[in-house]
Amino acid sequence: MPTVNAWAATSATEPLVKTTIERRELGPHDVLIEIKYAGICHSDIHTVRGDWGPQQYPLAPGHEIVGIVTAVGSEVAKHAVGDRAGIGCLVGSCRECEQCRKGNEQYCLNGMVGTYGSVDADGTITQGGYSTHIVVDEHFALRVPEGIPFEAAAPLLCAGITTYSPLRHWNAGPGKKVAVVGLGGLGHMGVKFAHALGAEVTVLSQSLKKQEDGLRLGADHYYATSDPATFEALAGSFDLIVNTVSAKVDIDAYLRLLAVDGALVNVGAPGEPLPVGVFNLLMGRKTFAGSAIGGIRETQEMLDFCAEHGIASDVEVIAADQINEAYERVLASDVRYRFVIDVATMQ
Amino acid sequence: MPTVNAWAATSATEPLVKTTIERRELGPHDVLIEIKYAGICHSDIHTVRGDWGPQQYPLAPGHEIVGIVTAVGSEVAKHAVGDRAGIGCLVGSCRECEQCRKGNEQYCLNGMVGTYGSVDADGTITQGGYSTHIVVDEHFALRVPEGIPFEAAAPLLCAGITTYSPLRHWNAGPGKKVAVVGLGGLGHMGVKFAHALGAEVTVLSQSLKKQEDGLRLGADHYYATSDPATFEALAGSFDLIVNTVSAKVDIDAYLRLLAVDGALVNVGAPGEPLPVGVFNLLMGRKTFAGSAIGGIRETQEMLDFCAEHGIASDVEVIAADQINEAYERVLASDVRYRFVIDVATMQ
Repeated sequence: MPTVNAWAATSATEPLVKTTIERRELGPHDVLIEIKYAGICHSDIHTVRGDWGPQQYPLAPGHEIVGIVTAVGSEVAKHAVGDRAGIGCLVGSCRECEQCRKGNEQYCLNGMVGTYGSVDADGTITQGGYSTHIVVDEHFALRVPEGIPFEAAAPLLCAGITTYSPLRHWNAGPGKKVAVVGLGGLGHMGVKFAHALGAEVTVLSQSLKKQEDGLRLGADHYYATSDPATFEALAGSFDLIVNTVSAKVDIDAYLRLLAVDGALVNVGAPGEPLPVGVFNLLMGRKTFAGSAIGGIRETQEMLDFCAEHGIASDVEVIAADQINEAYERVLASDVRYRFVIDVATMQ
Repeated sequence: MPTVNAWAATSATEPLVKTTIERRELGPHDVLIEIKYAGICHSDIHTVRGDWGPQQYPLAPGHEIVGIVTAVGSEVAKHAVGDRAGIGCLVGSCRECEQCRKGNEQYCLNGMVGTYGSVDADGTITQGGYSTHIVVDEHFALRVPEGIPFEAAAPLLCAGITTYSPLRHWNAGPGKKVAVVGLGGLGHMGVKFAHALGAEVTVLSQSLKKQEDGLRLGADHYYATSDPATFEALAGSFDLIVNTVSAKVDIDAYLRLLAVDGALVNVGAPGEPLPVGVFNLLMGRKTFAGSAIGGIRETQEMLDFCAEHGIASDVEVIAADQINEAYERVLASDVRYRFVIDVATMQ
């Protein structure tokens, strides 16, 4: 089995270190990708630190991956050597259940295989994108259009699709008022997409600190949620609210910002349950929903949409030895808007 | 102003008593209805007892009303003397806002006027159907088709539309698996409608006590929610769950019963917030929503649907002097499935 360089956590409490991991031999449907950039997602931190359950170590996280196809298996049809490819949060699913057939591999009824920390079909634990190479079934590799700068494409594979999918599913578009709660890695993509889809976009951020950024990214309005007046001024306003904040928020306060038949969609999962005053749902037939990433077909659609509309992620490129520092900055919300590791620094 | 017989609460803590109330003079757009039957809704009890806020007394509740039109104002076009008419939970709305224009008078952006205990356009407090006559704007009076037995039609005006509306809005029909939580006044209508709409219907009731009834009403399956095995057996099953239970339930347990893209719709509002584990929404893009009664157009559609499909409420007709006893039985869930007051006993 090929051994490749990686940066991995060796326990829930230690910093990530440079190490090596194994990749499987190329199967007939696999592609080998030489990774160029890997985004740092908040989920990476939660996972390696055991916040979402115990892990096997060493564990290389990373599910915002772009690179170049350097080898393809005998049966591969979708990709060729030299292609720009991307891998997101998914590297496997049953491909046969109703949801897989619908293109919702992320909701595979037999359990999808996550890009790292998941049990793969061969029983091994998957290893993510903080590494120089990855082997993946061609179905789960996306085509990254030439028009998107490579380092700025990586975060699209998670932060991008996570916000694009609910905006599409709940019909963000012309004549719709859309709010994005939180202007971080996810939120900044949500603003770009909602704007490009033609919606009237409002950012609801804790403070007005990033207001200038928000308006530059495409927001029409920007409000501070720390100001109670915001919740009075905007009551009954929005057709759709995409909440990118994983911390516990007063969900009732946001439900009251919805118009009749409006939907509040969480894309982050707070660690503790959110109390919902059901009256806030009844009066106006409102919806509180969740959405997790997106399927492969929709992820490709999102990448193509980005190329067409000149959309990419705002990134800060770092070297591999800055990963641990970057983690601390992510936890302090000190990044505009996504750290991306230059994988050349892992050689 | 005409004075009419009624049964009303005189305080939040006293039983209802026979009394008289005032009705307004017939305006040009009004109809006068001689009430024949009035259903007893759990909301009546909550309201007169002050559970949902302080009230002005005396207060005659009742928003499941059927009767005969006995006079019409000079401009009335929709109804004629002698017509069978119904009044539900609404007797007024602005008629001009976006929601009123859409037929969602119940979500009127300027505030709808409830059938009792609401401030009417003339500043008086509305009085409900536990009385011999009512005066109402013709827009808010429904046509009750001849085919529906009169006493069994009354509960359709609240229990009927409250369950019909979400079943229609969330597309209950052939090929859909629908669960109705709770087999009471609302639940028994939900089962009838979901069955008539062609869905595969499951009742989720606390025990199997009413199983025979449930199957007779149209359910295909019946499970006890007191049995933890129910939640294992039915995990991921339903496209739509209509929760008619106003008591606090473990909403996460029900969210786990939804299929991908499924919706859990509350039609009752528990007094305290329900904690929602957001992960249960994310994994499968699930929806937790609310729905309140229905608009006038949809209520008419529901009544016509009932006539076409031979649907009515299962009722126990009582005399006015049994109202207080009936309240205790409603609170003890001891009614199959709706008490209806024979208003002739108020003369």
